[in-house]
Order: sequence, then structure tokens, then C-alpha cells
Amino acid sequence: MYHKLVTVDEAVESAWSLLKESGWPKGESIPVFESLDHVLSESFYARVDSPPFDRSVMDGYALRSSDLAGADDAHPKTFHVVGREDVGVVFGREVQQNECVKIATGAPIPRGCDAVVMIEFTKQTSSEVTIYKGVSSGENIAQAGSDISVGDLVLRANKRITSRELAALSAQGIKKINVYRKPSVGVFSTGNEIVPSGTPLKIGSIYDVNGPAISAILHEMGIEAKFYGILPDDEKQVMSEITEALKIHDVIITSGSTSAGFGDMIYRVLDGLGKPGVIVHGVKLRPGKPTVIAVAGGKLLIGLPGFPLSAIMVFHLIAKPIIWKMAAFHTISEPNKIKAVVPFTFDAGKGKRDLVAVQIVQTKNSNIAYPLLAHSGSASALAAADGFIDVPEEREFLREGEEVEVTTLNPLIKVADLTIIGSHCLGVDRIIERLPNLEVKAVNVGSWSGWQAIKRGEADIAGTHLLDEKTMEYNTPFLEKSGLLGRAVIVRGYSRKIGLVVAKNNPKHVSSIEDLVHNKLIFVNRNKGSGIRTYLDFKLKPFVDEGFSPELIEGYTYEVKTHTAVAAAVYQGRADCGIAFEAVTAFYPVDFIPLHEEKYDFLVDNDRLSRNSVQSFFRVLGSEEFKKDLISLSGYSANADTGKILS
Amino acid sequence: MYHKLVTVDEAVESAWSLLKESGWPKGESIPVFESLDHVLSESFYARVDSPPFDRSVMDGYALRSSDLAGADDAHPKTFHVVGREDVGVVFGREVQQNECVKIATGAPIPRGCDAVVMIEFTKQTSSEVTIYKGVSSGENIAQAGSDISVGDLVLRANKRITSRELAALSAQGIKKINVYRKPSVGVFSTGNEIVPSGTPLKIGSIYDVNGPAISAILHEMGIEAKFYGILPDDEKQVMSEITEALKIHDVIITSGSTSAGFGDMIYRVLDGLGKPGVIVHGVKLRPGKPTVIAVAGGKLLIGLPGFPLSAIMVFHLIAKPIIWKMAAFHTISEPNKIKAVVPFTFDAGKGKRDLVAVQIVQTKNSNIAYPLLAHSGSASALAAADGFIDVPEEREFLREGEEVEVTTLNPLIKVADLTIIGSHCLGVDRIIERLPNLEVKAVNVGSWSGWQAIKRGEADIAGTHLLDEKTMEYNTPFLEKSGLLGRAVIVRGYSRKIGLVVAKNNPKHVSSIEDLVHNKLIFVNRNKGSGIRTYLDFKLKPFVDEGFSPELIEGYTYEVKTHTAVAAAVYQGRADCGIAFEAVTAFYPVDFIPLHEEKYDFLVDNDRLSRNSVQSFFRVLGSEEFKKDLISLSGYSANADTGKILS
Repeated sequence: MYHKLVTVDEAVESAWSLLKESGWPKGESIPVFESLDHVLSESFYARVDSPPFDRSVMDGYALRSSDLAGADDAHPKTFHVVGREDVGVVFGREVQQNECVKIATGAPIPRGCDAVVMIEFTKQTSSEVTIYKGVSSGENIAQAGSDISVGDLVLRANKRITSRELAALSAQGIKKINVYRKPSVGVFSTGNEIVPSGTPLKIGSIYDVNGPAISAILHEMGIEAKFYGILPDDEKQVMSEITEALKIHDVIITSGSTSAGFGDMIYRVLDGLGKPGVIVHGVKLRPGKPTVIAVAGGKLLIGLPGFPLSAIMVFHLIAKPIIWKMAAFHTISEPNKIKAVVPFTFDAGKGKRDLVAVQIVQTKNSNIAYPLLAHSGSASALAAADGFIDVPEEREFLREGEEVEVTTLNPLIKVADLTIIGSHCLGVDRIIERLPNLEVKAVNVGSWSGWQAIKRGEADIAGTHLLDEKTMEYNTPFLEKSGLLGRAVIVRGYSRKIGLVVAKNNPKHVSSIEDLVHNKLIFVNRNKGSGIRTYLDFKLKPFVDEGFSPELIEGYTYEVKTHTAVAAAVYQGRADCGIAFEAVTAFYPVDFIPLHEEKYDFLVDNDRLSRNSVQSFFRVLGSEEFKKDLISLSGYSANADTGKILS
Repeated sequence: MYHKLVTVDEAVESAWSLLKESGWPKGESIPVFESLDHVLSESFYARVDSPPFDRSVMDGYALRSSDLAGADDAHPKTFHVVGREDVGVVFGREVQQNECVKIATGAPIPRGCDAVVMIEFTKQTSSEVTIYKGVSSGENIAQAGSDISVGDLVLRANKRITSRELAALSAQGIKKINVYRKPSVGVFSTGNEIVPSGTPLKIGSIYDVNGPAISAILHEMGIEAKFYGILPDDEKQVMSEITEALKIHDVIITSGSTSAGFGDMIYRVLDGLGKPGVIVHGVKLRPGKPTVIAVAGGKLLIGLPGFPLSAIMVFHLIAKPIIWKMAAFHTISEPNKIKAVVPFTFDAGKGKRDLVAVQIVQTKNSNIAYPLLAHSGSASALAAADGFIDVPEEREFLREGEEVEVTTLNPLIKVADLTIIGSHCLGVDRIIERLPNLEVKAVNVGSWSGWQAIKRGEADIAGTHLLDEKTMEYNTPFLEKSGLLGRAVIVRGYSRKIGLVVAKNNPKHVSSIEDLVHNKLIFVNRNKGSGIRTYLDFKLKPFVDEGFSPELIEGYTYEVKTHTAVAAAVYQGRADCGIAFEAVTAFYPVDFIPLHEEKYDFLVDNDRLSRNSVQSFFRVLGSEEFKKDLISLSGYSANADTGKILS
């Protein structure tokens, strides 16, 4: 079905070599005022001197320095003030012996004068001025051309024009400058299932992400993009609209309709627009295999996969480097790669070049790349991914502590003031909202990974609700188990009611966990390792001890990853019953049968406790305003010792 | 003349407290598609589930998992294919026992099915498919809401919207989002001496830099600005045009006309536009003292000083923080401050808060801030300054090795591939132009500072033409003198002819340095420490030994900093004669009397010699193409050993 699978580097190189033959990067002359973010195609040499004339660098009096020889406090000299010069004004005649001209900073030096004496050393009375200090020839004068002379190199070719370079060019008074032309890009989304925002969703359809997202990434790259909207899977229409857009743009990016389901629709369209046509169909990449690249008449066409995260990652990996070369941005080093360290061992690669989305936690010494183990259709990863690791096909897994290169998706990665790694909680979200001046990085990887992050020094705070099966205590028993006793402390958080979620008015009359064992109910479970799953299995243990197998509960193996997903499954009728915390009742009209209160606490490294940002976090946690906020979340309640360190 | 001088912090605080009272930062609802670079004013919680329906994450067959129980290679099971589902297509009826539906990745799961088996484990023949592997319930299905459920926190308030956040919002299908409104800014330049680019310069006038530069900086901040052009120093006209602009904009920035020369014109205008009027007139700052700040009807007006570098630095220090707060960008930490180390001791402060423009050299361990010891009217500093140090008034100097905070002016500061510190040379510019793929940082501070930079490990290469008075040899004798013998080497560069510059056709019949001693010539000198000044003083020594005083040469104390400034002074008739290298004759129509060939060589740390970027530099130096280039510069010539290490 695919033609020949090529590597990413081969794909980029084969497109670029054809575009280079067509004359890219191309030069153009544009107004200096519009040149921001362009790259100079030629060095710029000064055309005017700077300053353009001898000028005063002080407010004072311009005169002949020889007339002031020997002047000091004890021997002041008096001059006749024959005129006044402001900036932009030229004094009409040559200044004679013992005459002077009052002069402003920036004003031209009158003929005959060779120095300026600062106003601080003078005293004017009507048309006379008494001067208490001598000056040497040239003092307080900036000579014409002394700063920049005609012919001096002002800006080197291949420099990117920022506000700074634009200022230097403006000082030269030129109207136009030679730069590399930025390719203009047209963006399309394709697919019958794609609908624009604001439209109600029919079953089977999803909102368009790629059009707005790819346009925004291009904008962040400094490239103009026009988004043409969504096209249906109709070859004739797609062909006609892209043909039109290709008259205007140098590059066309489409996404979607590349998979097997539509045969080779995008392939045929991109191949039919000019010579040489499709040059790449199929890249050794997961996700991203169905990527299509075509070149037609010196223009570039790329068909990206449909799933948003896939489309975005493949755009960064394949489209961006080619467009950078077209714009000659490759002459300034690529800004979107950083080094990072893998926090724990996880599977990746296994026979295909594998793009793993990650969140970056910046510590003092290194960046840590937390994998987002979401599949390529994930929308939550869209908001969380700071970048991705490009794992070669020969790898089976990435090892804890290994250094990797991350292609960044987020242009604003920086060291956070406060890093919270661990279990996700609505209460934490509320605390962070009360800290608008802190840059907070929250990584939701579950309680136990939070403990590991504290151990490795990656997090300031870990949110945790681990249940010890022996003592039925939350969190504190794990200080010893984890080896963190003495190195870290638990700060008491708050309680969250957990219980059974059932449909409104409880049609199946569920009242306890025992009903799962005895009644025929369809259950929706949480993933192993979650605090609530531990609680459930603990409660099932007496029945298991009597010979009951939990797999007999229909849906026991149907695991979802969040509390809200449990409520969604019950509300949508996919399950009769699930286990979650009460707060989900705010989002879905379901009923709730309380079973237990779990403790959500905070683990903190002793060394981080005194940090300002950590102190601010706990100040909010202990505040009355926050406790009021907490009550508004169903099932949440503060404890007597909320905000206190547990000893 | 000024009212009360205030500190920068007081100035920012007094403006901000009034703007805050007027309701800044202000919220607004804007289309998601236009929300890039805005800051969320409210947290955004999911309004639709993601995925919005149960969907397949694989290409394969949807079926009932119980029908496949026990299937494997040895015991395949056969199903009736009753239909096909592509993305966006919904299968019409409930799937029955031993039926299946062919399904594409992303397509909705048909009713009745609870699993998808991957196409790799199947073999279809007409309407039957044989399946060689069992699946568990839920396998290869992404459940509705399993990734994001209604009510989940998607984006936290105060987050800046990058392409990543825009993607997450698009996935939610919303059309509008609540953000903080960015203030809209109008920019004016004022001053009779200011002319727009493209206009011929009359004496006393200069090109407008501030209008384009301030607009560009605002654009880099993510703030829209409209530049209204240049206004003359006419109070009535300035008042009327700013009054009009204030109807449209939230902020007005003017520059120029703030100094003593124009009385209090800008003060009166900014004070007359509404209540409370001018709140700051005079800031404890050099440059920047005449800055004016006014607030009128909840709008901000700032009058910046006229000299471009001053206007730009004061904008960064005072205007930017206030505008950031108005836009609520203060909720994301300010990106334009970095720590740096001072490379040598220099004067600064001395009773006024002092802004010192610097170039940043990034080394592996730290940033080094090289001061640009230019006065505030300098245009060359505009192109070179990476930022500035804000020196408190109580300081007298900054000490070598001291850590300072630099406010950056250049948004693209990064570690250079190649750092060259030392004497400026046109030949070096030509080499660098042949290295378009290297990020090169060239800092022109003179030969000797280049040697110091090599010693401290800040530079890869130092360009040098130091003359040893004893041996009359260039550069090599200094290896021992500097203590770098064994640690660094000299790579042979090329020769530059130096000599006397005189007016065209040599009207004063100058032929040698002796003429300076014997004839009445007006001379233009170079600064002490420059290689050519050392040569001149060496040549004058025999006369000095005979009792001649160089100060008797008229203009001996008139020092300029560059070769081209020497030629400019002679060409413009300010001097009869000067000393410079021959290359200046390309820029000014002057005559040249050769005296000597100086050697321009390169000092390199042994440890850096093998670096790729250093190797590339010397490869160009030794190339025939470069040697040809060199000859086109008058007075330059390659040596037999150009590009060789001198032992």
C-alpha cells in the first residue's frame, strides 16, 4: 500500500534537494519596517556616518577650547553668548574668539567651535556666561562617523532581524533591505469526520485541531499561514481547492485522510499537482507512517496524519526543518531541541521509529522528560506535551537516567517556580489558581511516581493518596517503606469521600461493595495501582478469601484511568456501577453512595520545605479561603490539621 | 526643572496602582483561533468528552470479545463481516453474535461490540474473516471520556496560550475563550531633527529609530502597536494628534522632545489629556532622567528620551513592566532577565542609577557581560547590545568577576558556535560570511582585551595585531608576556598595509611621519592602546628622544576610535592627515601613503583548536577563495603561512 518507507532524514533531504534546485532560499527586498523576524540575505554596510555630523553629547556651551585655557574655579573666564542651538537647528555663522553658543545635547557643533563645556560648570547672566573649567579640544563632541563610518559592517548576512537589528537599520535611514523570502503556507484539514469548532458533535465526528494548531505553530516559527478550513474526503473537491491555493502559496500542508481507509486519496491529489509529484509516501515513524511529501514546480506539499498529536509531532519533525531551510532559518541554529533525562524505564521503539510525547520538568542541573503514555489520539496529551522523544526503531525501551534529545512543542519551557508531581486532584488545581504569580508545573502520573520524583529530587511536592493495606492508613506508612523517612515529610492535605457511582435514582438498588459480589451488575473499574482500586480490592479480599473470583464481576477488567471516566461510563449506561470520588457528581448527573474518606496529602523533601514557592503553596492550603473553596467540591473536606506537618 | 525625581520601581508602581484602580488587567472573550499569545483569565474545564465517543485505536475488526474466547493460531475463529466503518461513519444496527464490522482507526465502535482485533491477526476472504487471536473486553477501544471527561481541568487560569494550548482548546470545539485583553499601543516619535528613512539628511537632522524600534519590541512582546510617524516640536500639533490616538489606544508611547531644550512641551501635552495627568517627571536614571509618565482616564502615556539606545533601555525598564501588568503577562515570569559575570573592572554608577549596554558571551558555565562603553547617542551599540546592566547609584564601578543581572534587548541570545573577541577587522567579517551555518559572536574590544578573553576561556579565537616595541614583531612575543605560552597558539592571519591618510592629491605634500614633526599639519589620532597608535608612537620616539613633544602636533590629542573615523576626519577637512590602514580608501576618496605592513593574526586556546567551528574558521582562512577575497580589500595580502600555526 505504501510505496517505499524512508527515514525522516531521507524524507527531509529528498524534499530539500529538489527545492534547493528550484532556487530556495530566495531573496527579496522588503521595507525595513516590515523586516522583523526575517533573515538578511546580504551583509549590510553603513551608507551614512553616525553621528552624521559633529554633535554635542551634553547640554552646555560650544566654544573654542583654546579660549578657555587655564580656566578653573579661581580663574573663571567670561564669554559672550551669541546664540542658542537646539537639536535640528544650525547656527548661522562661524563662532569667533571669546564667543560661545548655548547648545543642547544632540545639536550640531557650530563652525569655529571645537569643544563643549557642560552647563554644570557655567553661570549665565543675560548675554554673558562665566565658565569655571577648561576643556580640551574635542571634549563633549561626538565626531561625525566616529561611531559608525560609511562602509563599516553594520549587520552580517544570515542574521535574523530582531528589534535590535531593525533599530540599527533604521539609524541608517534605508527604506528597504535584502532578506530571504519566507515561504507562504496554506493549511487544510481533511476528513468527513472533522467539524469546525462551535458545531454540535454528531456521533463519530470530532473537532478540527490540526488546522488551528498547525497555523499557530507556523506563526510561532515566524511564518505566515492561511488556514483554508476543512475539506471532505472528496478527491475532486480537495484537488480543486488545493490547486487554487497553490497559486498563492509556496507550501501546502494538509492533515488527515492519509490512512488506509481512504485508499490513496491524498496521495493521488498531491501527486497530480505538478512535477515531480509525490517523492515520499510512508515514513519509518510511529505515529506518522502515512505521511505524504510532494514537490510540484518548486513548491512543497505535505500530507500529515489525522490524529492531532501525530500531525503536530510529524509537522515538527519533517515539515518544520524543510520550511526552515526554505526561509534560510537554518542559518540560525534550530531552537527547538533540548537535552533531557529519562526518569524511569519504559518501553519505546520496538521495530519502528517511535515518537513519545513527554512533559519536561526542569531541575537545576537537567531537564527530566516524563513520558505521556497516551496513544496518538489523545487530546489531553495535547495540552500537557512539552515535546517528544524520537526513539530509533532498534531500541526496545528507554532506560532510567538515560539522556535523550527532546524536540520541543512548547515555546515557553522554563524552570518552574514550583513542581508538583503525583496524583491528580481538583483540590490541587484550586490551590494553584490562588498562586497566579508562580510558574507551576503539575505532572499527573499517580501517587507512587510522585514519591519516586521526590526521591530523585525532581519535584518540590508530590500529591499522594496511597493506602497501606495493613494499617488502612493513608500515606504516612510509606515514608518508611520508600526509604524517605528523615529525608521528607508528609503535610496533611484534606479528605475526599469515595464511594459507588450509580445511575440517577439508583435503579439497580446498589448499596455496598457486597452487591458487586452477589448481584449481576456491570461494573467499570479503575486502573491497578490507583488508590481507589487498592481500596476496592481490599474490600473484596474477605470474599476472595472465601473463594470468590473478582473476574466474575462483569466489567472488573474494564479499567478506566480517571474518576470522571467512571462517572461518564455510568451516566452513558455502559456500566451500572463504578467506584470514584464524590466530586464527579458535579460533572455528571449520577448518584453516589459514600463508602470511605480517603486522605489526600502532600509529600515534601525536607530541603525544599523552606522554599518561598513551597511555603506559598502550603500557606494557601492552610488558609480559610481555600478551605471554603474546598467545601464547594462535593465530598471534599478540610481536616483539623490541614496544612500541618505530620510527625 | 524636573518635579520630583523618583526611582524606577516607584515610577512603575505609581503608574500601575492607578491603572489597577481603573480595572486593569481587563478580561475579554475572543475567538480561540485568534487567542495565540494571550493569557487565560479563567481556568478552562472540559465541555465535551474526549474521545467524544467510544472509538477504535487500530485498523481491524470490531466484534464481541466473548465470541473470540480461546482463539489462537491453532484455533482460529471465523466471523461474518456485516459492514465496514470508516472515521465519521456510524454502522446502522447492533452487531450480533459471530458478526463483525471492519473498522478504521478513529471510527466509532458499533453497538454490540466491545473490542477490536488488529488487522494483523486476521485474514479476510470475501465476506468472511478468520481471526487468529483472542481479545479482552475493551481492547483497542478508547472509551468516551477516558482521555478527558466533561469537567476536567484542561487549562489553568493565567496560562499563556501557545500553539499547544490552542490545540487543546480546539479539541474542545469551543469558538471563544476568556482571556486578558492586551492593551493596544500607539507610538509616536517627536522632534524637529527627526526625519523618516529614505529622506536625505540635512545637517543637524537624524533618522528616526525609536518609532520602528519601539513598535518592533512591542511586537516581540506579543503586543499590537501602531506607529503614527514623526511629529515636529509643535505643542498644538502633538496635543491634537495624541488626543486622536488616545481615543483608539490604551497606551501611548512618545520619544524625544523631553530634554531641557524644549522646556516642558511633552510634559504639558501628557499632563493635559485627562486626570490625573503626569505622575512622574524625572527618573533617577542615566540615561532616562527626563522620562515622563502620565495616566489619563485609565490609559497610560509615557514620554521616553530621544537618543535611541536610551529610549530603548528606558522602554524595557519602565514601559515594558507596566504594559506586562496591564496584559497580565506578569502572571508568567518575565523572560528578559539573565545573570551574567563582568569580565573586567569598569566605572559605572557614581551617583546616578546607570544603564550600561553590554554584549553577552555565553560560555558553558556562565554568561559574560562585555560593556559597550559607548555614550547614549551611539548607533553602533544599537546593533551590538544584547542587553544592559542597571547599576545602582551608590556604586562607583563594577568589579571583574562580579555577578550582575542583565535586562536583555535581544530575544535570540544563545550560546554561539564560535566566539571571536578582540580587534575588529574587515578580513574577519569576510571569513564569517563564509560560515553561514555557524552562530558566530564577534565582540570588538581591541587586541589586548581579546588576549584576556582567551585567558579567561571566554573566546574561541582572538583577532590580534599587537606590536612589540622591542622586537617590532607582531603578536608572537606576547604569548610569553601574557603567560599563555604553552596554553595557546598564534595562527598566522594576513597583512594589512598601514600608512598616512591625506586629502585627495595630497595638497599638503605629506610623505612621512617626519612631516608631522616638522610641518604644520592638523592631525587626527587613534586611541591609546590601538596597534596603529603604538606604531606611531614608536616612530615618533627618535624625535621625542631628541626633546620633541608630540603634543606640539596639532590634533595629537584628537583621538578617534576607528580607522574609518580617521579617513572621515581627513575627507571632511577636519584634519590634514591621519594614520589608518589602506582599506579605508575604499570608503572615502582620500589618498594613502604606505608606511608599514602590520600582521593581523589569531590567538587560539590549545583546547579549542580541535573544535569543529574553530577548524571551519581556519579552513576558510587558509582557502584560496578567501585569499582572493582578501586582495579585493585594499592593502590586505595573504602570507605564505596564512592559516598555519606559528611555532
